[in-house]
Amino acid sequence: MTGPSENPADLDRSNPEAEIGARAEAYRNWGRWGEDDVLGTLNLIDPAHRVAAAGLVQEGRVISLAQSFDTNGPQKGWRRRTNPVHTMTDTGTDAERANQGFPHGIGGADDVISMPLQCSTQWDGLGHIFDHGFAWNGRRAGDVVTSEGDLVTGIEHAASVIVSRGVLLDVGRHLQPETGELADGYAITAADLEACAAAEGVTIGRGDIVLVRTGQLARTRRDGWGDYAGGPAPGLSLTTAGWLHRTEIAAIATDTWGFEVRPNEFDAPAFQPLHQVVIPNMGLTIGEMWDLDELAEACASSGRYEFLLSAAPLPITGAVGSPINPVAVL
Amino acid sequence: MTGPSENPADLDRSNPEAEIGARAEAYRNWGRWGEDDVLGTLNLIDPAHRVAAAGLVQEGRVISLAQSFDTNGPQKGWRRRTNPVHTMTDTGTDAERANQGFPHGIGGADDVISMPLQCSTQWDGLGHIFDHGFAWNGRRAGDVVTSEGDLVTGIEHAASVIVSRGVLLDVGRHLQPETGELADGYAITAADLEACAAAEGVTIGRGDIVLVRTGQLARTRRDGWGDYAGGPAPGLSLTTAGWLHRTEIAAIATDTWGFEVRPNEFDAPAFQPLHQVVIPNMGLTIGEMWDLDELAEACASSGRYEFLLSAAPLPITGAVGSPINPVAVL
Amino acid sequence: MTGPSENPADLDRSNPEAEIGARAEAYRNWGRWGEDDVLGTLNLIDPAHRVAAAGLVQEGRVISLAQSFDTNGPQKGWRRRTNPVHTMTDTGTDAERANQGFPHGIGGADDVISMPLQCSTQWDGLGHIFDHGFAWNGRRAGDVVTSEGDLVTGIEHAASVIVSRGVLLDVGRHLQPETGELADGYAITAADLEACAAAEGVTIGRGDIVLVRTGQLARTRRDGWGDYAGGPAPGLSLTTAGWLHRTEIAAIATDTWGFEVRPNEFDAPAFQPLHQVVIPNMGLTIGEMWDLDELAEACASSGRYEFLLSAAPLPITGAVGSPINPVAVL
Amino acid sequence: MTGPSENPADLDRSNPEAEIGARAEAYRNWGRWGEDDVLGTLNLIDPAHRVAAAGLVQEGRVISLAQSFDTNGPQKGWRRRTNPVHTMTDTGTDAERANQGFPHGIGGADDVISMPLQCSTQWDGLGHIFDHGFAWNGRRAGDVVTSEGDLVTGIEHAASVIVSRGVLLDVGRHLQPETGELADGYAITAADLEACAAAEGVTIGRGDIVLVRTGQLARTRRDGWGDYAGGPAPGLSLTTAGWLHRTEIAAIATDTWGFEVRPNEFDAPAFQPLHQVVIPNMGLTIGEMWDLDELAEACASSGRYEFLLSAAPLPITGAVGSPINPVAVL
Repeated sequence: MTGPSENPADLDRSNPEAEIGARAEAYRNWGRWGEDDVLGTLNLIDPAHRVAAAGLVQEGRVISLAQSFDTNGPQKGWRRRTNPVHTMTDTGTDAERANQGFPHGIGGADDVISMPLQCSTQWDGLGHIFDHGFAWNGRRAGDVVTSEGDLVTGIEHAASVIVSRGVLLDVGRHLQPETGELADGYAITAADLEACAAAEGVTIGRGDIVLVRTGQLARTRRDGWGDYAGGPAPGLSLTTAGWLHRTEIAAIATDTWGFEVRPNEFDAPAFQPLHQVVIPNMGLTIGEMWDLDELAEACASSGRYEFLLSAAPLPITGAVGSPINPVAVL
Repeated sequence: MTGPSENPADLDRSNPEAEIGARAEAYRNWGRWGEDDVLGTLNLIDPAHRVAAAGLVQEGRVISLAQSFDTNGPQKGWRRRTNPVHTMTDTGTDAERANQGFPHGIGGADDVISMPLQCSTQWDGLGHIFDHGFAWNGRRAGDVVTSEGDLVTGIEHAASVIVSRGVLLDVGRHLQPETGELADGYAITAADLEACAAAEGVTIGRGDIVLVRTGQLARTRRDGWGDYAGGPAPGLSLTTAGWLHRTEIAAIATDTWGFEVRPNEFDAPAFQPLHQVVIPNMGLTIGEMWDLDELAEACASSGRYEFLLSAAPLPITGAVGSPINPVAVL
Repeated sequence: MTGPSENPADLDRSNPEAEIGARAEAYRNWGRWGEDDVLGTLNLIDPAHRVAAAGLVQEGRVISLAQSFDTNGPQKGWRRRTNPVHTMTDTGTDAERANQGFPHGIGGADDVISMPLQCSTQWDGLGHIFDHGFAWNGRRAGDVVTSEGDLVTGIEHAASVIVSRGVLLDVGRHLQPETGELADGYAITAADLEACAAAEGVTIGRGDIVLVRTGQLARTRRDGWGDYAGGPAPGLSLTTAGWLHRTEIAAIATDTWGFEVRPNEFDAPAFQPLHQVVIPNMGLTIGEMWDLDELAEACASSGRYEFLLSAAPLPITGAVGSPINPVAVL
Repeated sequence: MTGPSENPADLDRSNPEAEIGARAEAYRNWGRWGEDDVLGTLNLIDPAHRVAAAGLVQEGRVISLAQSFDTNGPQKGWRRRTNPVHTMTDTGTDAERANQGFPHGIGGADDVISMPLQCSTQWDGLGHIFDHGFAWNGRRAGDVVTSEGDLVTGIEHAASVIVSRGVLLDVGRHLQPETGELADGYAITAADLEACAAAEGVTIGRGDIVLVRTGQLARTRRDGWGDYAGGPAPGLSLTTAGWLHRTEIAAIATDTWGFEVRPNEFDAPAFQPLHQVVIPNMGLTIGEMWDLDELAEACASSGRYEFLLSAAPLPITGAVGSPINPVAVL
């Protein structure tokens, strides 16, 4: 294997720009699916793969992989990311008191939500991250995402796409069999991912959606949110970029706020370097803040780590992300 | 068949209260799944039905059944229902101008949405409608939905449930083969539903999710929104309540704003009488504003009107509905 | 003076209900301004008082008494009260890049805000608090404030009223000349208010708007928000209810989150007992989270503690409060 | 008088860019109040002018000049401008039913608002409009207003400023004594403004806040909103720019959506040319959607067209505008 090292020890921790740049160049998919492409690696899901994935449904059990969309969530205001604010425009109390003005005893309740699209379980769209002013497929960032939204690669383009084989890599349980939880700051390597897959008896391949469980959410559930939104976390090392590329997976998601290891693997100021490589350059769709704990229990029980995954985003015009309720069908 | 008439001509158009009351009593499912139940007819989906539904996946094609979540939508402010307002908290234009304060050339875009949960493609939760101050399963409305939200039957309880066999009843095409569109005000009867299913070669049964296409959305797409949100529309007759009950379907959805025919079938003031029967009394989950047109084309081409349907709501704590992107997997 | 004691030591700390009830009864203004009244003590401002107040303008100096409306505010989510979320729908960055689609070089910036009406400097409307299910003037709470808003006493009714003589009672400086700050939990008494006024050389009277500075905001500015929103604070004792009534003031405001002392003066569970007395029973308009520090400096310098106060609420239909920018004109 | 013509007939209707450019250059105030200035013409209000204005208070009458902030407002979604959405997070109905969890019979109502800052009566901030990528005082637009808001000239800087002499120019009544209403599309000229002031017996001068009543709102109140938000309207001609400059007024407001005449006075595509001259170049603060009808009645009755005007914006950090309730004190 040539190309950038996949060993975190080889990273020049003083030079994030160079380490990011080398991987951006090595794994850049610009033009791979045509110059008008708006889907990136989601193109790698082909219909036959979906038919095979449907064949994995044996129990008829559905497991939601979403966290709650709740006022009592982890957001603390960073970059104006708040927790959802859900308010009622009509209530049962009013209906019971018969003050709604409706005939024949009917009453109603309606509601409204205000929330960042990145506040809870979500897909990052391809317009979510830029590299030196460039967006996915080599477009100028300002040609893609203005105040009007993502004019080119909005999440609505993925409305009919994201159903495929899902594979759980329970790295938390693999590396820490007793607790099932990786320590904050642990950088998951390509070797870790390979070893976990081997231990689970699965092979990751083209069009798969890979779910990496670190166990951090389980810890948070026990200890409180703390700095779940943006603080230290286990997650993928920048050095997994090559693995993410050569496996030809369609998408990846984790049970953490930000998918990659935090703090990031540099001494110099750095922020989400793996995002910078894989979203604008590779065109990879990333899921964050998924709840993989019930699924992990189910997979551990059955010994089967693959399933049908259905995770269509809301087609919000021009959005750079979408709240989702992904479901694994076992 | 005993019980209330299933012929719209038999309705006493001067007395909605009596017509609603008779059907509420006849088809009430309170207590059927225990006094703590929060799912209603969604209980009718059993795992084996899901396994069978997965077996319907032959092409590996995914069709989104969601309308856009877009500022240019049909809402006009009735009961404070607006179209979604999607705003950016970070943009590509800013990233390209490098004014975001991030290191090593990374830039980002984030966004926020504010919307009624009933503004576009949605599930109505069980707390959405009340009958004389009572909610699903016989609870007092004010014990269920306060200003805090739905404290009992919030949509989050359905997060891991709504994957089943979907069946499209393209009543628009069945009754109007040339246009595929029913006229506004046309009340679809139980006989229409039966005849459509027979013509399509499908049998509706326990645990199915039935999608009724009227063609109104296709007309709206051509002519503009007009009064799509709340105005005249084709839809189910109040007299279909018995059919909805005895088929033991899990859920139903239409391509219209309000599922039932508008204007409602009474001369006296009336408002959504079928909702009043089926949500609080029967416990039926209803989908509205679905886009069934591409699916209808696909079904007409293949002659197959059944598929795997995946339509999990967002688990918004205490919500009485949820925006969704339902997908049919063919 | 008969009636409930104005000495906090006399309070039965085990029985908030009795202590509140005695004062509610003693100071209830129901019917005083007619059965249709929607203004309460704001009726006490008469035109001549405003003319006299305008005569107090000697320097032509305007001092804003508002805190910022800012994402970095004190709210932490209690009762879904968040800090304001301000987002841009058009930006200068976009305008400079000329991607807004406007002719002849014009560009624009627009913005949106989402906020609780109680998030920062505000007036509490008369529909904000209820006493045993009753609202101001003896109306049933459910006849006044439904999910539709305050149908009777909405803040819009006060749109043309709240300009009067303002008087600053800098109790913080009066009682703590060195620091100017009262300790959290300090209950300001009627005697304190009288002594402070006397020391300042002002007489409080009919139609005045009294601003009580505790100094807590100055402390918060120095030490960080901490529990400013809802935590311990200096503030008015329940026993000031008689003073608030007999002085015939039109309104009162403080530099704290909640106007009255926190924790409240009971051993039994209690919550904002003075609100319960003065809003629904007395009809008093209360301002909270005002910034009185610059005004206090000015008054201390000039020795004049009275001024023209202009503090009109936004006429938000049906609101039970309003964000405001009150100004003192000296 | 040299400089651009003040006669609309002289405008080259095919060349908005040239006509705007000539006036931008002629009336540009960049640097006039220093390079750090954030107030523009609001600097022209001096303390003595405020003292004199307070002396105009003779009746002690307050007139709100705000329209309602109401769901049933004029906005139709243009540039995502909606009407306010006001929702309750606690209600009197809940309080009356005693389901809020509070002790000793206290109950509460709280509320939330979501609205564009330009949705109803407002001030435009200095960051609201740009000219060829430049903002007020010659700054680059992208250095001033990013997705974070107005980082330089945010409306919060005007929190302690906008109290001054107000003068009503009731041009509607002056030119159309019978109806009091100018026709949509009527371009008010500098000569109209001068003649109206002369007829009213007032002289406009340095530091004044001028309120121009066209009568369009009165018409709208009678006929319905129609296209009030953005459609045809009477308003100031581009050729009044010189008058706005040489009178040295501090601010101006109208009873229309957009202050200037609509359609704009060009055959070529044009959009709000007077905004482009006066906001970024002159630094003029503009008020829109004010309700001047009750004030006009009062002024006509008394024959006095000057008063104390108090119109402080909410100090929303980084906002390019603010909802306001301006009050005239007569």
